[in-house]
Amino acid sequence: MHSDIFYEIIRSRQSDRAYETRPVEKEKILRIFEAARLAPSACNAQPWRFIVVDDTELKNKLAEAAASRVLGINHFTKQAPVHIVVVMEPANFNSNFGSVVKGKAFPLIAIGIAAEHICLAAKAEGLGSCMLGWFDETAVKKLLNIPKSRRVPLIITIGYPAVELREKKRKSFDEIVSFNNY
Amino acid sequence: MHSDIFYEIIRSRQSDRAYETRPVEKEKILRIFEAARLAPSACNAQPWRFIVVDDTELKNKLAEAAASRVLGINHFTKQAPVHIVVVMEPANFNSNFGSVVKGKAFPLIAIGIAAEHICLAAKAEGLGSCMLGWFDETAVKKLLNIPKSRRVPLIITIGYPAVELREKKRKSFDEIVSFNNY
Repeated sequence: MHSDIFYEIIRSRQSDRAYETRPVEKEKILRIFEAARLAPSACNAQPWRFIVVDDTELKNKLAEAAASRVLGINHFTKQAPVHIVVVMEPANFNSNFGSVVKGKAFPLIAIGIAAEHICLAAKAEGLGSCMLGWFDETAVKKLLNIPKSRRVPLIITIGYPAVELREKKRKSFDEIVSFNNY
Repeated sequence: MHSDIFYEIIRSRQSDRAYETRPVEKEKILRIFEAARLAPSACNAQPWRFIVVDDTELKNKLAEAAASRVLGINHFTKQAPVHIVVVMEPANFNSNFGSVVKGKAFPLIAIGIAAEHICLAAKAEGLGSCMLGWFDETAVKKLLNIPKSRRVPLIITIGYPAVELREKKRKSFDEIVSFNNY
C-alpha cells in the first residue's frame, strides 16, 4: 500500500551525523532535486536556490565553516560527500505582500517544506541527511559567491549513513493534537 | 521500488481547492498526525500544536475567517470537511538561542516541515489538502481559544479532492540548482 511505504520513509528519516565515504550517485541527486523543485510555496513564489557542493576540497572548506569549535557542534559534516546549501531568494509580489500584511515570513516556511522534500527524497533513495542551521553564514556566502543580500537558512548534508536508526524522541499525540479547541 | 511511490506522492500532491462532501475517516487523520509528530525541528524543539476542526458548525465559522471578501480568496474552504489549524508554540532554549544569534526563525522552518508532512501524508491516504496563510488570525484565535501570545502561521484544509491533477508550474532545474558555486 502506498501509505505504508510513505510512513516507512517518514519513520526512518533521521538526522544522520556519520556517513560512509562512498560517493552519492549523480542520478540520485537529480531525482532528489526534482522532489525539491515540485515543493509548494506561498503564491508559488519558489523562493529558493540550491547549491550542490560535491567538490571534495570545497566541501571540506564548507564543512569547516559549518563546524563551531566553540560550541563543539557539527564536527561530523566533513564526512558527508555532498552538502546542499539552501539559499533564500526574493519571493514574488503576492508572497511579500502577504508576509508583510500578515506578519509571517512565508519564504521561511517554504524553505522548510523544500528542505524536507530533499531529506525525505534522500531517504527514499536509501541515503541519510541532516539539516544544519548553525554555521558561519558570512563565510559560506564568501566561499560560494552568494550575493550579500541573500540569506542562507540551511545546509543539508547528504550521504550513505554510517549510523543505525534511533528511536525518535517526540511529544505524544495528546501533547500536540486537540479537536475543535486549543 | 520505494522511491517510485515516494515521487508519485510528491508529484500528485497539489493545492486542492475543491472537495467532496464525504467525511474523512478518523484513522486516516490519526495516521496523518503520526507523520506530523515525527517531523524534525531545530534542536528537536517541536514548536507546534495542531487543532483538528471537524465539527461542522465550528468548521464553517473557521472557513468564514479564512475567506477574504475583499481579496476574493480562499472561498473554497467551507467545502473541506477537516481544517487543521497550525499553532506555533514556544521553542526550547537551544532553538531560541540559535534563532536569535543566527537571525533565523527556526520555528517557522519547522512549521513548514511539519505542515508538509501533513500534506504528503494526506496524499498518501488518497486525500487532498491546501495550506492557507492568508486569514484573519485574530478571529481564528478567538474562535478556538488559542492564547493571544501564540501565532497561527497556517491552516490546512483536508478532504477528498474534487479536482483533477494539474500540471505544476515551477522553475526549471537549471534555474534553482547549481554546482559548487552560486
